[in-house]
Amino acid sequence: MVNIAILGYGTVGSGVAEVLQTNQSVINKKAGKEINIKYILDLREFPGDPLESKLVNDYEIILSDSDVDIVVEVMGGVNPAYSFVKRALEAGKSVCTSNKELVAAHGSELLAIAREKNINFLFEASCGGGIPIIRPLNSSLTADEIDEVTGILNGTTNYILSKMFHQGSEFEDVLKEAQEKGYAERNPAADVEGFDACRKIAILSSLAFGYQVDYEDIYTEGITKITATDIAYAKKAGYTIKLLASSKKVGESCYAMVAPFLVNAEHPLYSVNDVYNAIYIHGNVLGSVMFYGSGAGKLPTASAVVADVVEAAKYLDTNLMTFWSSEKLNLTDISNSQGKYFVRLQGETTEALKIARETFGDIQQIEIEEVQAEIGFITEELSEAEYRMKAEKLSGIISMLRLQR
Amino acid sequence: MVNIAILGYGTVGSGVAEVLQTNQSVINKKAGKEINIKYILDLREFPGDPLESKLVNDYEIILSDSDVDIVVEVMGGVNPAYSFVKRALEAGKSVCTSNKELVAAHGSELLAIAREKNINFLFEASCGGGIPIIRPLNSSLTADEIDEVTGILNGTTNYILSKMFHQGSEFEDVLKEAQEKGYAERNPAADVEGFDACRKIAILSSLAFGYQVDYEDIYTEGITKITATDIAYAKKAGYTIKLLASSKKVGESCYAMVAPFLVNAEHPLYSVNDVYNAIYIHGNVLGSVMFYGSGAGKLPTASAVVADVVEAAKYLDTNLMTFWSSEKLNLTDISNSQGKYFVRLQGETTEALKIARETFGDIQQIEIEEVQAEIGFITEELSEAEYRMKAEKLSGIISMLRLQR
Repeated sequence: MVNIAILGYGTVGSGVAEVLQTNQSVINKKAGKEINIKYILDLREFPGDPLESKLVNDYEIILSDSDVDIVVEVMGGVNPAYSFVKRALEAGKSVCTSNKELVAAHGSELLAIAREKNINFLFEASCGGGIPIIRPLNSSLTADEIDEVTGILNGTTNYILSKMFHQGSEFEDVLKEAQEKGYAERNPAADVEGFDACRKIAILSSLAFGYQVDYEDIYTEGITKITATDIAYAKKAGYTIKLLASSKKVGESCYAMVAPFLVNAEHPLYSVNDVYNAIYIHGNVLGSVMFYGSGAGKLPTASAVVADVVEAAKYLDTNLMTFWSSEKLNLTDISNSQGKYFVRLQGETTEALKIARETFGDIQQIEIEEVQAEIGFITEELSEAEYRMKAEKLSGIISMLRLQR
Repeated sequence: MVNIAILGYGTVGSGVAEVLQTNQSVINKKAGKEINIKYILDLREFPGDPLESKLVNDYEIILSDSDVDIVVEVMGGVNPAYSFVKRALEAGKSVCTSNKELVAAHGSELLAIAREKNINFLFEASCGGGIPIIRPLNSSLTADEIDEVTGILNGTTNYILSKMFHQGSEFEDVLKEAQEKGYAERNPAADVEGFDACRKIAILSSLAFGYQVDYEDIYTEGITKITATDIAYAKKAGYTIKLLASSKKVGESCYAMVAPFLVNAEHPLYSVNDVYNAIYIHGNVLGSVMFYGSGAGKLPTASAVVADVVEAAKYLDTNLMTFWSSEKLNLTDISNSQGKYFVRLQGETTEALKIARETFGDIQQIEIEEVQAEIGFITEELSEAEYRMKAEKLSGIISMLRLQR
């Protein structure tokens, strides 16, 4: 029997308990052992809950119980999760977590402790919810030099952008609707400003490249400024708009960015809609792969956490090697990255086109009926620095969005 | 150092050598050991090849060399691959293979030998080429009762159907074009009759459900009868046509089938085009996930084989448990499976519609301009047996295609 303790009996924690109960027989079979919830740590009380007897509010009870093999941390936030997890690992208990803030901030350190203790620190649910991505990166995509990881990693923003695309509606209206449906938080900043996706791409980039990518270094732009008009332009030219969290290796340079991008219909991320997430990866011999699924939600997330518990139970005394050095990867400033840009410029058509061509050379105009006194166009490929230099000379740029290659 | 022997220096075998060389440093880092090709078994000669010195034509040399830790079988076909692989495992050498025929026919037996010897039998490249699917099924989707695995598992047929869809062309013309481009074999039966996809879904179903699914038991239908008119109807009603290889659990029944299906635009498999493959999986707590990528090709396939080599090298004396019992899973006859059907019926419109309604009740007519003296419609949900019973009463059914739910 393998005893586990769940830290936090909120949405994910109760999901973990539910999944363990619902799929008990298949889970025990796959783990090769019976998995038993011995403790649930929460400061709140849950009178009448079937697992009420497992509840404790003192972490020391869990830490000092040598029967606890695996700690499941699903509290969220960096503190006190960090000290709880670190102490569990130091006490020789494997840890499974869904906590992206914790993993982005302290992943490499916690992995090193697990390696030293010959146990495991697993975090499949920290990126992409139920989508298997951490383990595939770690144990399947091992024959390749990975040169790109690009994900739709936030369900709330993807829901909003999908609705805007299909209904032609404005950001504020769809956000309100998403909040009513429970797809967006009352304070939506972490999602709509791209902070959530930023932590996740920091984790995935660290794993893909093997070095520490600090989330604070990643250029991050949200979707709050996207309008129905931007989407109408994109649609007319055969694109959709997605919030992409992306890392690319070009030669010796690594770029990482979270921003709304125009994605063309041939790209596999184009059709990832609503609350679904997907991670596109390119390797030098593998080519393109994509992993698609539910990026959030109680049960999909719990499914990923429990899969980690099964793995930790199978390999209680074997460290499953994970390549994430504490050595920092210095990201190259995105001003050196190359790409095309969609630009909206104020002005009467003929005159504005003349100015746009004088400034950007060959451009591809996109004409839509909904607008007056403005033009929309896509530039040739140029660096961010070149774009900015040229754009500074113009007055009246309404919006700029990058194109995903 | 870990020594490997490659059996077969054809497309995949030379791809494996190329990937090991191109990505040497990242591969050795991930394996934690230097991986060295000690032998390549092939009866042919390769004068001037940089690896000429490694070539042997007697398998006994490899088998009796205790320095060989891992055998890479990429010859294809059941014989002599089966006896080579079995003897390697019995000699305590882990085996990595891309051979779907071998795995479909003898997977559970070979896994049992590997388990007994505490080594590994790995076959990531046998299904879906470079797409990580075997390992995710085995070590990531472990918290779920999987109730559906549906794949686009054959690149040739997906290329043909994609071209037919986008160009409105006929099967024979696109097949010829595919043969010219090297996307289809001169003898295309294994692909276009669904036999290749059938072996792959047998393997995936065995892993998903944990019991032996015999490929001979799987109802298999190819794409040779699909016409431009079938596709025109599908397109008009918002569907595409895909060759799906599918296993579903409904209550206590398991169905497996390879056949062309109408797939609606909301389904993630809808946008999987050209030579790309994808595997859609549904779990009772996870919901939907999909794995997408290059299903064939020298380097993507070799990438998956080498990822297996890395895994085998990391866990030389640890069996990575795989659940595939030799106990047979008895598939339920597909005549009990439920679904909707797209039917083309000969006759003058009013009269044919009257007959269709008398036979099938509520139907959804699809009208296209290209046809004369026929109608096309989609039935309500009914079992295959009910469909056949009703269809038998009609003369003049031109074609029938199932709808993917």
